[in-house]
Amino acid sequence: MKTIGRHLIAEFYGCDAAITGDIEAIRQHLNAAAEIVEATVVGEAYHRFEPDGVTGVVLIAESHLSIHTWPSRGYVAVDIFTCGGLDPRPGCELLAAAMGAERLRYQEIVRGLPDEISGDTTLLPDDVLVMTELGQARKLR
Amino acid sequence: MKTIGRHLIAEFYGCDAAITGDIEAIRQHLNAAAEIVEATVVGEAYHRFEPDGVTGVVLIAESHLSIHTWPSRGYVAVDIFTCGGLDPRPGCELLAAAMGAERLRYQEIVRGLPDEISGDTTLLPDDVLVMTELGQARKLR
Repeated sequence: MKTIGRHLIAEFYGCDAAITGDIEAIRQHLNAAAEIVEATVVGEAYHRFEPDGVTGVVLIAESHLSIHTWPSRGYVAVDIFTCGGLDPRPGCELLAAAMGAERLRYQEIVRGLPDEISGDTTLLPDDVLVMTELGQARKLR
Repeated sequence: MKTIGRHLIAEFYGCDAAITGDIEAIRQHLNAAAEIVEATVVGEAYHRFEPDGVTGVVLIAESHLSIHTWPSRGYVAVDIFTCGGLDPRPGCELLAAAMGAERLRYQEIVRGLPDEISGDTTLLPDDVLVMTELGQARKLR
């Protein structure tokens, strides 16, 4: 397995509290996200908070997917870290749609050994994309 | 709980394979990292790969800590996402020392609702710190 990976960090806004507060729904959607990125699931953990909020992670052979929800704020924090050549973006798109997100932003960070990234240069900002809408990326600098 | 959080993304290089390949050691150190950042643990999951490599996550009331190790490459990928005003850096420093990291780099991303960050401006690059050594940060731009 190559160490180089893509770590997608996403914020979803205006999400549907009926979904984001439902631990079983979160579990199903996070597993669907793992499946759509063609990851191999090797573990998982979930927790529901009182009065509301769900947190969960799926461990995959290629790293992890995590989700943390604040239903009363409409906010969901997602990160999908994939090594082994997998593309994390379809997983993010699936989750944004499943949570009923009205707006989102995401950024992607390249991770791994220096020689696999770009000759030991900094990871930022050239290796980071900031996305303001699904399907539209702009490169910093 | 405020939604605003700090997400520290770290790469450790030159780590000790005897530690990074030991799932029990990883579990102990990740829990110690959760403790030093004063987080409340609410769940966990771990997996050991063949021929080597360990992946693990601790769910905390304030989000999560994750670790993925490539013992034969000396590489460890860590991320610590803390909401609720917790500082993730002591956890990163503890893990770097525990893994015997010779070099590391880390960056920190501010996450949360737009009005809690900076009036709906982009998260990057002003909200990101890139650290090249422990204790030394430089702000991009």
